[in-house]
Amino acid sequence: MTLFPQLDAFRGGNNQVRLIGHRGSRGVMPENTMPGFAFTLDIGVDALEFDVVMTRDRVPVIAHNSRLDASFTRDQKGSWIAEPGPRIAELTLRELQTLDVGGLDGRSTYGQRFPDQAFLNDVRIPSLEELLDFANLPERKNLSLMLEFKSDIDAKSPVQERVELVAKVVSQVRARKLEARTVLHSFDWDLLSECRRLAPEMPTSYLSIMPSNFQGSDTKDPALVCPDFGAFQMSLPQAVARAGGQMWCPYVADVTQDLVAEAHQLGLLVSVWTVNDPAEIQRMIDVGVDGIVTDYPGRVQRILSAQGMVWRDDTYGQTA
Amino acid sequence: MTLFPQLDAFRGGNNQVRLIGHRGSRGVMPENTMPGFAFTLDIGVDALEFDVVMTRDRVPVIAHNSRLDASFTRDQKGSWIAEPGPRIAELTLRELQTLDVGGLDGRSTYGQRFPDQAFLNDVRIPSLEELLDFANLPERKNLSLMLEFKSDIDAKSPVQERVELVAKVVSQVRARKLEARTVLHSFDWDLLSECRRLAPEMPTSYLSIMPSNFQGSDTKDPALVCPDFGAFQMSLPQAVARAGGQMWCPYVADVTQDLVAEAHQLGLLVSVWTVNDPAEIQRMIDVGVDGIVTDYPGRVQRILSAQGMVWRDDTYGQTA
Repeated sequence: MTLFPQLDAFRGGNNQVRLIGHRGSRGVMPENTMPGFAFTLDIGVDALEFDVVMTRDRVPVIAHNSRLDASFTRDQKGSWIAEPGPRIAELTLRELQTLDVGGLDGRSTYGQRFPDQAFLNDVRIPSLEELLDFANLPERKNLSLMLEFKSDIDAKSPVQERVELVAKVVSQVRARKLEARTVLHSFDWDLLSECRRLAPEMPTSYLSIMPSNFQGSDTKDPALVCPDFGAFQMSLPQAVARAGGQMWCPYVADVTQDLVAEAHQLGLLVSVWTVNDPAEIQRMIDVGVDGIVTDYPGRVQRILSAQGMVWRDDTYGQTA
Repeated sequence: MTLFPQLDAFRGGNNQVRLIGHRGSRGVMPENTMPGFAFTLDIGVDALEFDVVMTRDRVPVIAHNSRLDASFTRDQKGSWIAEPGPRIAELTLRELQTLDVGGLDGRSTYGQRFPDQAFLNDVRIPSLEELLDFANLPERKNLSLMLEFKSDIDAKSPVQERVELVAKVVSQVRARKLEARTVLHSFDWDLLSECRRLAPEMPTSYLSIMPSNFQGSDTKDPALVCPDFGAFQMSLPQAVARAGGQMWCPYVADVTQDLVAEAHQLGLLVSVWTVNDPAEIQRMIDVGVDGIVTDYPGRVQRILSAQGMVWRDDTYGQTA
């Protein structure tokens, strides 16, 4: 029924809410790392959300911020790097991969938000290709990718930069024939237009956050590359549909039952970020979202299974 | 310096506190299961605590209670088993392994204690031999075993039963040459005497809990097979030393700085169970225990690393 088979893995309904591991499973494992991705899949969560930026030598790598984060980056001597960390766009892949992102500094504000995250050593920022190769392993064939593009706000030529990033990423995805398992995802709606132009075979997922909720959100970059959502003359689902998207990915506090219903009427799927609080998890189930992006997939699994709900097609987790 | 090389992996001091995953890592993964054990090792925790009981066909298997627990056991149809679950001693290994212990029922009291534990499907109660074979894999050579014997309080011939259990377990450990990585551990101090007689090459670890703290503890069995600790005419460390033990494993609320110092003066190591609360974790670090048995190893790693402390010999996790 859908033009995009990729979306089947993100569609809820009928006692089912999809789980999407946020940056892997940031509550449990170091974010945006291969051990975190493997853990997420190993507990039966098939969709990974992760972030892509580009190095100085033009290699797409998996990292959330345009700068290295001092609260989870150690140098070769095991010392935390100084704040502010260098821009990833100014380091080569080789330079980046001398650094260790397996541990979170328990003294940092950011570290205190994830007190149970395991502390690993010798974990490198992965290139996108590492994750794509992993997705292509026969035992990982269930894996779906929610690939978030991060726009570099400090880039000298933002338009040229984003065209190059999208082109590189699309080419790497296609080289592994992973288009049918990949959703392209961003706050940068202009970049998503570029995606639709360069890769019409992959669905696009439109992130949003209302300015009134920005302070309480998870977002670190103060100058996110995104539209002025507060100035829209229509609802967010309408705007996503008009932009040509297939998925709307709102911030949890912005979600209402009416908006979810409206999105569904417009033929959109709704995945919500980032839902960690048990009451919010329940509210998202109740308003009927398709998918929950979470740092704590075990927690959401438990809330779903306790009410006889599933997150996979094979009734994984369902109890009679 | 020690007669028991097994103890080196459990010795703290010098900025080091050892981590021991309780039933694997029960806060994160299903307890006493192979996926939980693998996760624990994968995050850099080398010591596993787990529980051994015997099936009807006399196979040592890894499970905490003498009865199957309805809050985390599903039958072949995916239904939770009825309370009270059958005694493990009345089922064969084959019968046991038709059941799924990968998920925890979020509606149960026990399930609510571990709300972040992942919900897996198709996870079986492992035989002890499965874990021993896993420990013998070349990539798992760092693994140390804190093997807890559970005495069956309902056995018809408790003495004969415990002799048979100890003999079977010791023979399986020896068959894989794992004696030098195994500590024998129990609340049943008579059983530990049997261990000392049958396996003098393996150190013994004496569990204790003062009756005054029993209510607040983790222990489910109402009639634990253990001495009447409240009636001892000497301190617990003195009693362990007199009994011939090498390690004392007290309940966290029973631990004081003086008792830890006394245990160390007597040449004992001190590992404490089960320490999940951040304030208690810090208190255990401060009173100088050797090891912390925890359901949340990531949490303890983070508290240790934030103060420049380590849990492994290779300065794993240490930050400069």
